[in-house]
Amino acid sequence: MPEQVAFLGLGAIGAPMARRLAASPAYSTALWNRTASKARTVAGLARDGGAPTVAATPREAARGAGIVVTCLPTSREVASLLEGPDGLLAGLERAALLVDCTSGDPATSRRIAVRLAEHGVGFVDAPVSGGVAGAEQGRLTVMCGGSAPDVARARPVLETFGAKIVHCGPVGAGHAVKAVNQALLAVHIWSAAEGLATLEKAGVRADVALDVINASSGRSNSSMNLFPERVLTRAFPRTFRVALLDKDVAIAADLARQRGVPAPLLQLTAELFRLAHATLGEEADHVEAARVVEGWAGVEIGGKYSSGEG
Amino acid sequence: MPEQVAFLGLGAIGAPMARRLAASPAYSTALWNRTASKARTVAGLARDGGAPTVAATPREAARGAGIVVTCLPTSREVASLLEGPDGLLAGLERAALLVDCTSGDPATSRRIAVRLAEHGVGFVDAPVSGGVAGAEQGRLTVMCGGSAPDVARARPVLETFGAKIVHCGPVGAGHAVKAVNQALLAVHIWSAAEGLATLEKAGVRADVALDVINASSGRSNSSMNLFPERVLTRAFPRTFRVALLDKDVAIAADLARQRGVPAPLLQLTAELFRLAHATLGEEADHVEAARVVEGWAGVEIGGKYSSGEG
Amino acid sequence: MPEQVAFLGLGAIGAPMARRLAASPAYSTALWNRTASKARTVAGLARDGGAPTVAATPREAARGAGIVVTCLPTSREVASLLEGPDGLLAGLERAALLVDCTSGDPATSRRIAVRLAEHGVGFVDAPVSGGVAGAEQGRLTVMCGGSAPDVARARPVLETFGAKIVHCGPVGAGHAVKAVNQALLAVHIWSAAEGLATLEKAGVRADVALDVINASSGRSNSSMNLFPERVLTRAFPRTFRVALLDKDVAIAADLARQRGVPAPLLQLTAELFRLAHATLGEEADHVEAARVVEGWAGVEIGGKYSSGEG
Amino acid sequence: MPEQVAFLGLGAIGAPMARRLAASPAYSTALWNRTASKARTVAGLARDGGAPTVAATPREAARGAGIVVTCLPTSREVASLLEGPDGLLAGLERAALLVDCTSGDPATSRRIAVRLAEHGVGFVDAPVSGGVAGAEQGRLTVMCGGSAPDVARARPVLETFGAKIVHCGPVGAGHAVKAVNQALLAVHIWSAAEGLATLEKAGVRADVALDVINASSGRSNSSMNLFPERVLTRAFPRTFRVALLDKDVAIAADLARQRGVPAPLLQLTAELFRLAHATLGEEADHVEAARVVEGWAGVEIGGKYSSGEG
Repeated sequence: MPEQVAFLGLGAIGAPMARRLAASPAYSTALWNRTASKARTVAGLARDGGAPTVAATPREAARGAGIVVTCLPTSREVASLLEGPDGLLAGLERAALLVDCTSGDPATSRRIAVRLAEHGVGFVDAPVSGGVAGAEQGRLTVMCGGSAPDVARARPVLETFGAKIVHCGPVGAGHAVKAVNQALLAVHIWSAAEGLATLEKAGVRADVALDVINASSGRSNSSMNLFPERVLTRAFPRTFRVALLDKDVAIAADLARQRGVPAPLLQLTAELFRLAHATLGEEADHVEAARVVEGWAGVEIGGKYSSGEG
Repeated sequence: MPEQVAFLGLGAIGAPMARRLAASPAYSTALWNRTASKARTVAGLARDGGAPTVAATPREAARGAGIVVTCLPTSREVASLLEGPDGLLAGLERAALLVDCTSGDPATSRRIAVRLAEHGVGFVDAPVSGGVAGAEQGRLTVMCGGSAPDVARARPVLETFGAKIVHCGPVGAGHAVKAVNQALLAVHIWSAAEGLATLEKAGVRADVALDVINASSGRSNSSMNLFPERVLTRAFPRTFRVALLDKDVAIAADLARQRGVPAPLLQLTAELFRLAHATLGEEADHVEAARVVEGWAGVEIGGKYSSGEG
Repeated sequence: MPEQVAFLGLGAIGAPMARRLAASPAYSTALWNRTASKARTVAGLARDGGAPTVAATPREAARGAGIVVTCLPTSREVASLLEGPDGLLAGLERAALLVDCTSGDPATSRRIAVRLAEHGVGFVDAPVSGGVAGAEQGRLTVMCGGSAPDVARARPVLETFGAKIVHCGPVGAGHAVKAVNQALLAVHIWSAAEGLATLEKAGVRADVALDVINASSGRSNSSMNLFPERVLTRAFPRTFRVALLDKDVAIAADLARQRGVPAPLLQLTAELFRLAHATLGEEADHVEAARVVEGWAGVEIGGKYSSGEG
Repeated sequence: MPEQVAFLGLGAIGAPMARRLAASPAYSTALWNRTASKARTVAGLARDGGAPTVAATPREAARGAGIVVTCLPTSREVASLLEGPDGLLAGLERAALLVDCTSGDPATSRRIAVRLAEHGVGFVDAPVSGGVAGAEQGRLTVMCGGSAPDVARARPVLETFGAKIVHCGPVGAGHAVKAVNQALLAVHIWSAAEGLATLEKAGVRADVALDVINASSGRSNSSMNLFPERVLTRAFPRTFRVALLDKDVAIAADLARQRGVPAPLLQLTAELFRLAHATLGEEADHVEAARVVEGWAGVEIGGKYSSGEG
């Protein structure tokens, strides 16, 4: 008989994760989303695999579930989902496990874990990387924080959407690693934009510069993939909002400060993405941060070359 | 009959470049080095291929050469090599070409090019990346700045040690691209050190964190190669001095300022490597910059795990 | 009959504040300090004015007091003083008022205020500036956060050691203003050190430079007082620890981040004082941060001139 | 008989300086300005004192003059004024002295001094502070770089518009001190804006905060004068362009880099004023940099309080 599980939070990345979970014959899945119509849509799409039910409240979703997965914008939403008459705590069984795939913050996660422990419920933070495509293909990387038994217990559920599941350390460690990864991404995007804008103004085409840099020691995922595909083409597809990267970098920067690590580059990058977020608005993509540098410099990176040149 | 060329500056990277040039049957090569014994050693090692001669002065090296290659610590040394009774200008033929493989700065290179043009001599800046191993194997990447005919003329010489020869733009463009590449390298090293020191203090092992980051969006050449091989192992091999990376980042930062590009991350990184250079001394390797972050944070990145753990 | 009050926390600045309070005929004062001998010493010194008693526990100090004043290293110590069988909450009367002169943080103060309100106790944050000399002379500036009635009620007590009492806003506002003042102090010290070290290396004596700057638009309290008296003389008296300024700047930087204000200069300054604290140790004075800049620059600011030169 | 002098560059600050010089009975003054009508206007206004003549070219202005004063936007303009058939060098007498009141850069000034020395002409850099009002009242502070005899010789001329004349060091020292003063001004403006925007968003009025800060250790000329008079009133009078402060901070930042002083705060401030300049345009006042912080933070500093409140 399939194990009963729940998935709460069906956003851009949560929805395909939930569909893969619901499609697994090992699980009987309840879905919940703040906007219920979204849950019904996901349940409908997933019907071919399992037959997910739609829960009216977090409490109802949690009832009878051994494992409850959450995937929300920030840890604050996760914390507030616990409380109240319809909250998760009202439905969670003793000995259940909450697996939080939110890109959250370690400190709030530790508070959530303490609160859950009062009810005999375990907690694993398990943020993911790999984007919507990775979720759809079950190829996400999952960074876990929690006790070894709790992470082991979460693993089969995580494997329905993740290809690489890594136990990073105690509760909060998954969020910490995710935040640092995002901070490095942010550093790489911004510094590449500064460097390429400088080169454009010095008469060097960005595509030529990237051809060299990507064969040299200064290369990064940003220079190898994001800039060629998104900036030089001027496509700037909206896959991950700068507002969310702003939040992630701030988590990493706060963590550095809490842990007593002088981190001038991470702190400055947090400020730059904060102002990029303020400048570009809520809907802009994270790679559009390069537009802020372009605006200051009065130059465009790539885009203007006729094809065939080089 | 082989074309006559000269190579001046037989340092860590210049020596293997010169040996490859001298080994080519297409060229008859004269070598010069400030410390003449070094030139004699390189000439001896290269004797199996061509039969390089050792010149007593830059002037003598330049005499009769169609192409003169320089590879010195900074553009300042290149500029001072031109002048004086034994300088390059006293020996260079009209219509010769100076190919400068120094990791130099664009502004000085433009001044050198103007000075050479007064004597009918062309100039190409052609800094390289790929390290000593790349030089020995003829696999360097070469970034060229200069006119299209001059770069075309330099290409066969550059191909004796380079596998990827890219024409980046006008005189100075090669140095500009090299400087930006180095600045991004510096940004990546320092930010990775900040992030990993933070994670270590939050209870996450650096090797575990890198395993995740290197499968995620925050990866760079630094996180994928330098940190696993050099920092986590505590090996810190001395392959490229932090003093030289300090100089390179400063070139990129100055270029951004000259070109009117607000570049807070590059400028801050220039300061951090300046202070790392002051703190670590002249002989330290560039990756040892991570030690400065470790010292501030009071933590070591990697190193302390017994093998086999994970 | 004098009103009963208590003063908890007899550190460098708390002790002279408590002595002035105890000396006022308007108050009957109970003193408490973690190290009791310190409380007995202060009580003895103050005996000429009132006749302060020494309390064995925070609870005992609070019993019967209309107003309880705290002055501790951080808000964390204030929060922990509330709880437990011997804590303040066990002794505080309903309708009493806690006046916290700690240089604390707004967020913790708001939590403390909520906790006190559950017991019917009011809260005013009231950090001070003016140093030990200002406390001894009753000339402190006091920044208050809280409701207007609570601040009005605290005022006569604050006037025993303060000359300028300013109501800044709601609970936490006093701490916020104090933290920003300290952050500006930190910015001014560090930037003056950078500027003067640069001038020294360019052949300009720091005393000559300050003579000009202090007659010009770049002057600050740091350039007018701290550098002439403490740096150029190489006296570096230990009046306020860099460890505490590190804490204060971090409060301001965190506040900026929480309030969504991109503040690159404050954030970077927080990092610089964090690393200065790590480098200089717990006992160093805040002005010794200039020594870190000197060390990086390889130059001393002032100090080496023979007298009479100019 | 009055000594013959010349004054070149009649901008916002140069014009009142020239008028004071021309009004001195000790001097017979020739005026020159790129836009000649401006020179005629200044000459007309000054006619009551001396009787300044208007020169058609720099060469004509210099002819017969013992001392030539320049006051231009940047050192670049001074350097270019020297050359050509109508340039200063064509008119300057051997043993004349060029006194440059431009807020220039030390490196260019040293090159100018070398060029002048070839013609037997001395050089003193003598930038001023005190603004238009200070110039009109003859109350400027003048920072001099040059040899002691040259500065002594310049002093009587400088005293026609300056009240405090300080010999700072060798050629370039005046510009270096001026640049550092300006950089500190820039640091103080920007950091005060960050701090006050944060306080506004935390519910603290900027006027209340400044009342406290200006009685405390965080005060500066910016917090005591610029913010109360120009920001809180929302007057933002245009007295000194942000474009010029951008240039000045960059001079200080470049000097720090050339002298090998890690100066993260000065470098970051240079970037912030560079982007403020790009954002606000050529005509904006330097204090309007606060508007950039306000825009990022989404808050206004002061301005919205009805009068009489407090």
